[in-house]
Amino acid sequence: MCAFRSISIVGLGLIGSSVALAARRLRPRPRLAGIDCRSEVTAAAAARGIVDVATTDIAAAGESDLVILAAPVLANVALLPSVAACLRPGAIVTDTGSTKRTIVEEARRLSRELRRGEAGARLSFVGGHPLAGAAAGGMEAARADLFEGRKWVLTPEDDTPEDAVNNLSAFVTSLGAVPVTTTVAEHDRLLAVVSHLPQLAASALMHVAGEMAGEQGLSVAGAGLVDTTRLASSPPEIWKDIVLTNSDNIRPALARLAAVLSGLAADAGAEGDALERVFASARAWRDKCVVPTPGVPQGAGSDGA
Amino acid sequence: MCAFRSISIVGLGLIGSSVALAARRLRPRPRLAGIDCRSEVTAAAAARGIVDVATTDIAAAGESDLVILAAPVLANVALLPSVAACLRPGAIVTDTGSTKRTIVEEARRLSRELRRGEAGARLSFVGGHPLAGAAAGGMEAARADLFEGRKWVLTPEDDTPEDAVNNLSAFVTSLGAVPVTTTVAEHDRLLAVVSHLPQLAASALMHVAGEMAGEQGLSVAGAGLVDTTRLASSPPEIWKDIVLTNSDNIRPALARLAAVLSGLAADAGAEGDALERVFASARAWRDKCVVPTPGVPQGAGSDGA
Repeated sequence: MCAFRSISIVGLGLIGSSVALAARRLRPRPRLAGIDCRSEVTAAAAARGIVDVATTDIAAAGESDLVILAAPVLANVALLPSVAACLRPGAIVTDTGSTKRTIVEEARRLSRELRRGEAGARLSFVGGHPLAGAAAGGMEAARADLFEGRKWVLTPEDDTPEDAVNNLSAFVTSLGAVPVTTTVAEHDRLLAVVSHLPQLAASALMHVAGEMAGEQGLSVAGAGLVDTTRLASSPPEIWKDIVLTNSDNIRPALARLAAVLSGLAADAGAEGDALERVFASARAWRDKCVVPTPGVPQGAGSDGA
Repeated sequence: MCAFRSISIVGLGLIGSSVALAARRLRPRPRLAGIDCRSEVTAAAAARGIVDVATTDIAAAGESDLVILAAPVLANVALLPSVAACLRPGAIVTDTGSTKRTIVEEARRLSRELRRGEAGARLSFVGGHPLAGAAAGGMEAARADLFEGRKWVLTPEDDTPEDAVNNLSAFVTSLGAVPVTTTVAEHDRLLAVVSHLPQLAASALMHVAGEMAGEQGLSVAGAGLVDTTRLASSPPEIWKDIVLTNSDNIRPALARLAAVLSGLAADAGAEGDALERVFASARAWRDKCVVPTPGVPQGAGSDGA
């Protein structure tokens, strides 16, 4: 049973469009508004009928009791004041970005501003991050079952109304996801290591392999290189925002990986035990990774572009 | 039509056992001898009937007209003198190791030694490397179609008898592989970048991610980390030999990757363009990678343990 009668989704990329497809199956079926700054995207959403209304006008969010920001991280941050300005009383705002600090800080700032203004006005914001994605982004790759069995992190704060968290939890559960609650700081610290670092490492590896081997050299590459660099197809515009808004966590992770690789380089050919130590540790940690069900796409990056 | 009537396979890991399974289907069917220093492995090979004779005695290789060294790189190097000492006239020796210099140098040294001894005695050695593998190693993971459509690199030298190269080419073709010829130096230079570097990067990444996120943190990892670190399950004993015998090529590749990661760290949060440059280059190179057919296991590391 969906607590929301009208939902606005801002950003109709992979995640936003998949939320729309999954929400269409709810009963009672909420009214779905799709908002995207790209008119060709709203046209496609209207043509495919994935939302009831598709528009480039952010003010349309004012008609909903749930607004989901599913654009890249800094676009969500930039949109939040406009959304807050048109919000109907009691409405909840959430986002799906891969970093949480910047958007949560902006929500806090807006909330303070609102409290100084009209009596009783407030912004009910709960940060969110579905741990789902796919090799390909965009509306074309969207699927109603994208969130099936995937964790959906929520980062409520001490003063977040309990109702808002409960209703949002129930909503992501109805999309098939498993809500998990954590702090903003813990989310950003962990995701830097298990999601942002692998993305940057995969891109750096593909860059170096291409540069050093050339096209002819890549022709002798096997599944090893191909699997290890699957993430290297990810769109830079999403990742630029993620790195900018989580740099203090990402920087030490990158530095540590660079140091381990340099250690392996120093040890190569020297009969040291760096390789054995790194391999033993890697195999042990790898065994602790929960390997997602094969065939079900799932990715580290989850922002709809 | 198989030119070899009797084939000895030394090392019954994934690659050696898969060669046996594929060679069993040839007509006329060659006699297959499996040699492994581990008696439990020869017992399993005998029990499963993947070879006609299974033994721990390297002298059994003296009965074959083709000897395939499919143990880890340095084990192959250590075994070569014993094989050369028992070899029948006209027999060909090849290997399946991931680096080629050390074994080829040892073959050259033994050949010189033989020429100084008995008149007419020589060692016909052709380096080989099937670019096939699988997530799991060992005889249990072996499959007759492992080499289907995969490249099998051969590294003949100027004085390698043409017949030896032609017969070996025909043999790997009969196993389903596509023979490609290159120099020892070029093989080792390219594989350092497209195979050895991805392996070391995947292990280093899994090591760092586990160390920094801990078991709890890994529970929020998605397919991004899981795919990027698939190679991190590889056995260290195989990779130690590879790194030792190709360190001059691997060291600069590791150093370059460390430098790119350090560059991304320095640029993180600084609005620089390192991320955009690396992502753009990575996406372009990634598009040039031939993605192996899904469902058909293929790996960068190919030595049977």
